[in-house]
Amino acid sequence: MPDIVKVPQEPIDTIRMLALDAVQKANAGHPGTPMGAAEMTLTLWTNFLRFNSEKPDWQDRDRFVLSVGHASMLLYSLLHLFGYDCSMDDIKQFRQAGSRTAGHPEYGHLQGIETTTGPLGQGIANAVGLALGQALLKGHTGAPLKGHTWCLAGDGCMMEGISYEAASLAGHLGLNNLTLIYDQNHITIDGSTDQTFTENTELRFKAAGWDVIKVDGYDQAALCQAFAAARDSQEKPTLIISHSIIGKGSATMEGTAFTHGNALGEKEVAATKQKLGWPSDPFHVSEETRAWFKAQVALKKKAYDAWATEFEAWRKAQPAAAGAYDALWSQKLPLGFESAMIPGMAEEKGSTRKLSGKAIQALAKQLPSLIGGSADLAENNFSLIRDGGTVGKADGVFKGRNIYYGIREHAMGSITNGLALHGAWRPLCATFMQFSDYMRPSIRLAALMKARSIFDFTHDSVFLGEDGPTHQPVEHLNSLRLIPGLTLWRPAEGLETAMAWAWTASEARGPVAFAFTRQNVPTLPFAPGFDPKQIWKGGYVFEENAAADLSLVATGSEVALALEASKLLAAQGIKCRIVSMPSVCVFGRQDEAYRKQVLGSKPRVAIEAGSTGLWASIVGSESLVIGIDQFGMSAKLADIQEHFGFTPPQVAEKVRLWLAGKTAASAAL
Amino acid sequence: MPDIVKVPQEPIDTIRMLALDAVQKANAGHPGTPMGAAEMTLTLWTNFLRFNSEKPDWQDRDRFVLSVGHASMLLYSLLHLFGYDCSMDDIKQFRQAGSRTAGHPEYGHLQGIETTTGPLGQGIANAVGLALGQALLKGHTGAPLKGHTWCLAGDGCMMEGISYEAASLAGHLGLNNLTLIYDQNHITIDGSTDQTFTENTELRFKAAGWDVIKVDGYDQAALCQAFAAARDSQEKPTLIISHSIIGKGSATMEGTAFTHGNALGEKEVAATKQKLGWPSDPFHVSEETRAWFKAQVALKKKAYDAWATEFEAWRKAQPAAAGAYDALWSQKLPLGFESAMIPGMAEEKGSTRKLSGKAIQALAKQLPSLIGGSADLAENNFSLIRDGGTVGKADGVFKGRNIYYGIREHAMGSITNGLALHGAWRPLCATFMQFSDYMRPSIRLAALMKARSIFDFTHDSVFLGEDGPTHQPVEHLNSLRLIPGLTLWRPAEGLETAMAWAWTASEARGPVAFAFTRQNVPTLPFAPGFDPKQIWKGGYVFEENAAADLSLVATGSEVALALEASKLLAAQGIKCRIVSMPSVCVFGRQDEAYRKQVLGSKPRVAIEAGSTGLWASIVGSESLVIGIDQFGMSAKLADIQEHFGFTPPQVAEKVRLWLAGKTAASAAL
Repeated sequence: MPDIVKVPQEPIDTIRMLALDAVQKANAGHPGTPMGAAEMTLTLWTNFLRFNSEKPDWQDRDRFVLSVGHASMLLYSLLHLFGYDCSMDDIKQFRQAGSRTAGHPEYGHLQGIETTTGPLGQGIANAVGLALGQALLKGHTGAPLKGHTWCLAGDGCMMEGISYEAASLAGHLGLNNLTLIYDQNHITIDGSTDQTFTENTELRFKAAGWDVIKVDGYDQAALCQAFAAARDSQEKPTLIISHSIIGKGSATMEGTAFTHGNALGEKEVAATKQKLGWPSDPFHVSEETRAWFKAQVALKKKAYDAWATEFEAWRKAQPAAAGAYDALWSQKLPLGFESAMIPGMAEEKGSTRKLSGKAIQALAKQLPSLIGGSADLAENNFSLIRDGGTVGKADGVFKGRNIYYGIREHAMGSITNGLALHGAWRPLCATFMQFSDYMRPSIRLAALMKARSIFDFTHDSVFLGEDGPTHQPVEHLNSLRLIPGLTLWRPAEGLETAMAWAWTASEARGPVAFAFTRQNVPTLPFAPGFDPKQIWKGGYVFEENAAADLSLVATGSEVALALEASKLLAAQGIKCRIVSMPSVCVFGRQDEAYRKQVLGSKPRVAIEAGSTGLWASIVGSESLVIGIDQFGMSAKLADIQEHFGFTPPQVAEKVRLWLAGKTAASAAL
Repeated sequence: MPDIVKVPQEPIDTIRMLALDAVQKANAGHPGTPMGAAEMTLTLWTNFLRFNSEKPDWQDRDRFVLSVGHASMLLYSLLHLFGYDCSMDDIKQFRQAGSRTAGHPEYGHLQGIETTTGPLGQGIANAVGLALGQALLKGHTGAPLKGHTWCLAGDGCMMEGISYEAASLAGHLGLNNLTLIYDQNHITIDGSTDQTFTENTELRFKAAGWDVIKVDGYDQAALCQAFAAARDSQEKPTLIISHSIIGKGSATMEGTAFTHGNALGEKEVAATKQKLGWPSDPFHVSEETRAWFKAQVALKKKAYDAWATEFEAWRKAQPAAAGAYDALWSQKLPLGFESAMIPGMAEEKGSTRKLSGKAIQALAKQLPSLIGGSADLAENNFSLIRDGGTVGKADGVFKGRNIYYGIREHAMGSITNGLALHGAWRPLCATFMQFSDYMRPSIRLAALMKARSIFDFTHDSVFLGEDGPTHQPVEHLNSLRLIPGLTLWRPAEGLETAMAWAWTASEARGPVAFAFTRQNVPTLPFAPGFDPKQIWKGGYVFEENAAADLSLVATGSEVALALEASKLLAAQGIKCRIVSMPSVCVFGRQDEAYRKQVLGSKPRVAIEAGSTGLWASIVGSESLVIGIDQFGMSAKLADIQEHFGFTPPQVAEKVRLWLAGKTAASAAL
């Protein structure tokens, strides 16, 4: 690192005034934190954050996470001034339709936005994932990497449970390349934190195994000392508690809750600028300040060049390791890789969770980026990458491919997102499907960011048995399908399971969720010559019948049930065709002609052990939907099947009666 | 309290063996914690827990919450042995279809189950709610109450973020009638907690403002000393860290992860009983042990009688306070109470969140049990009970009707459930609808328990504006409707808002969620003589038209939009009838004839600013559904409306084209 640069007042005030002006122009936004944290953050960016705005996707760059996402103008100003592709016009379009400077930072809108934040606490867990991604990249490849993750959080982030979970795990792991900066201004929307939040945060983080440094957020020398200690920490992650004043610099509103989420008003803006001796025209940046930032950018570029020289030397000296490094980033799979995942899967019996475990092993061999983890259910989820080792630190280096998350589902979800956003990793995380509710905010953010996180849920229906309704998903299949851009797969048996994993590895453009059974499912009699790629359509005709009276459409464990019921119906002269629909989401993306052909023109029955809610939109509201719209029960599998009417005779009888009613009704017309 | 009773070994072993036998018979369950924690828990129940099994609904009883819900056999054994209505047959039916002894304790199955637990961490937050309910009851009425809440939690509960949030708030409040017992056995499903959980829990709770006592879980004298200190604490809640050995007492499996969630096997059961000199027949309880428990029950009854005498004396001395006390428990509303909530509401303009604030004031006057709270958005949610005061402790007594939860949505949800389960309170809690995802596990548990919690969500659609997609609900209306037994209301204007609150106060048999707008909505032209009780049908014909070409069905802010669009359509000769559907859930409970009559026989169009997913099941898949199946955007309200096609001209044009297509298609037949 070059010598410490003392940041002059004008660049700091420029950031403050840009936030003031942009929020005022939009008449919406949050000026308080950008103003309060400008000096601290600019000191960090100037002296410690490793980036190159000409090469914003530098793989070993430091990651800056703005967990306090409502302070988006702080980040936009920094990106603009440090030469990222964020123009003054972008700044002026803050919070306007179609602009890249949204109310909260949106991943993909601008380079330099490392993750979408806004829902509080999420950024802290994302940062744990990003830092872990950096540490594992270094440990797995041996490359000369220095990537550090810096996360800026506020009182709200600290109060959210996800921040506790993520911090507890980071402390346990000794994730020393992570620094969390807590901008402690003691103000939230409802007023002073005295009202709600009086814990000792320093002690809390020490309890979790962190180093803690308290510092005045306007003392640059002290800040730099803290940042240096955090960067150089070898054992622990570091919390820097930076005391600040919300709305710092405003004429009359410093330290008030009003500055948190309101435009300060033309009068206050004018008074503030007058007090500072600032030009009154909005969005002012002086030539001197431009030149100052330009000089900093040049220093950053120089540091980058030095890194690049060292890295290239390593690549030449270690070609095999460099190849492994590149493979992690490319995540390329050989053409037809899925054929290595299929053999024997259609013949293998067991639960789909167990079959999924087999598919994971096959995929892990071909995709070194695949990294696993579970919230204390590794053996139950069959999510372990065998021989992958446990993620942890030994001799200062992180190794392993299986993360033991503990019982921390929410943090697990957002750490997984952080790992996915890092870029070198394809992370999966596993728990019971019931606990998808605990991590729903993370899943939604993955979908919003199109992060390629994999959510591996097992125990996918009431048929998990004796654990009862607190553990039995009912509405979860449908409620996951409702999240825009999330793809849910619920395979029926081994071949569908393998192909769903293969689709996830090669076709998915966003997050994927799986629904696997706890209970055993039988193998299915695929027709000779069945092309497994049909599964990638999301739904397909499993068993055609030219003379069919109806289509039975089913997912997951209910495909075998539909087949059994169809045999009973056949004995009564009712002929069925069977449609398997392992992914309602993917099926919905097929063209209408295909969907109509698969569903068939005859009456349709949908069977799924979950809420019926969405099925009318898939098979039509004239169809019979056999589902479960009530909570489950604690009992043996067979008793649950009987209770909810999910035995083959019960299903066959329901279908027969319904069809008879339909026939009678149309005869009466 | 009487003198401390030293619990003999046989009653302790009886609890252990009942767990062993019941799990073995079911071949499913969790014997480890019941065995490990039997001595500690029985010591607590014998010497400190205030209950009367002959009067299990004693209002001032101590509450025992088994947060570690998988250890259900521990609770069932205690209830059985202490004379609750839980027979040996119930014990033998552990985890069987239709039994009252489910895999996890289910509220309502047995008296003495204070809350449904299983999803880890929830019980801790429920306990905070129960303790707060006790403390507020004492503070609001001045009655001579002593209710204390004791919560037993395990490693998993402690790792969940909700436990941090709940503990941080309890510490802030100084909730001294709460004791959390952490059965620290260092074992989770995946093995030793060394793998995942190495924080200093003692320090963590001290940081949160708790007293912490560490104790050997098999040292009864030390346990009693700790329990007494916790009970007598005047300032802080208490954490007792009780060191234990999972599976304690088993012949060869003490301290192993296997005992956590597995039947130990016939061989181990036999060896364990042999080692103890225990009869081999399952479910053995000796005469001596029966007699010992009977003696304890008699002591409990005596203590209860002493309390009742004192309480009756207070009632006589303080008739007004006793009346207020009774009013809290009865929650009775005067006949026609809703008429006091209606006046002016149909004429009042504003956002429905603001109109809701008005309704809350009117209701709060009539229902003293109503208690409010928000996760740092009190003013934004308009959820404050004006003049209700802030919930907090002064001079050792809790007062107030508004809880400042801080930014702790998940704990807020489950604390709200605890307050509802307490019995004297009707709690509402508020946040942005987006953050319903953060508290979804709590909402689901409220529905499962039929707890009368009120979830007051504002900012209910993309129309909240500039905060953008991280804050804009899209799938949330539908995903909440999917939770069995939860009733969602999304009123269109003031009168519907008032009646939705009135329905919640008087008609709801389980939890209710509200969806209120951030943006202003116009008043609606109700027909003269409109009966507001029609709103309680969930959906009704707002504007009839005998010659209608179609029905426009809308909810919330889209009812006004439908009306505007219908005017444009009328100008083009297309006649509409308008259906307002403030509660799809309640409408779905009406008989088919009513639903058909309201929806009408003509083509139907549904309009709602959210996912379209469920609408086919309500209006039919042949209908047009105008909704939003993608993430929102950061922009001004008007731009968002335009972008998503939710202006009156856009809606009218969509309807016109769709209807024309329909007419053309049927003409072509």
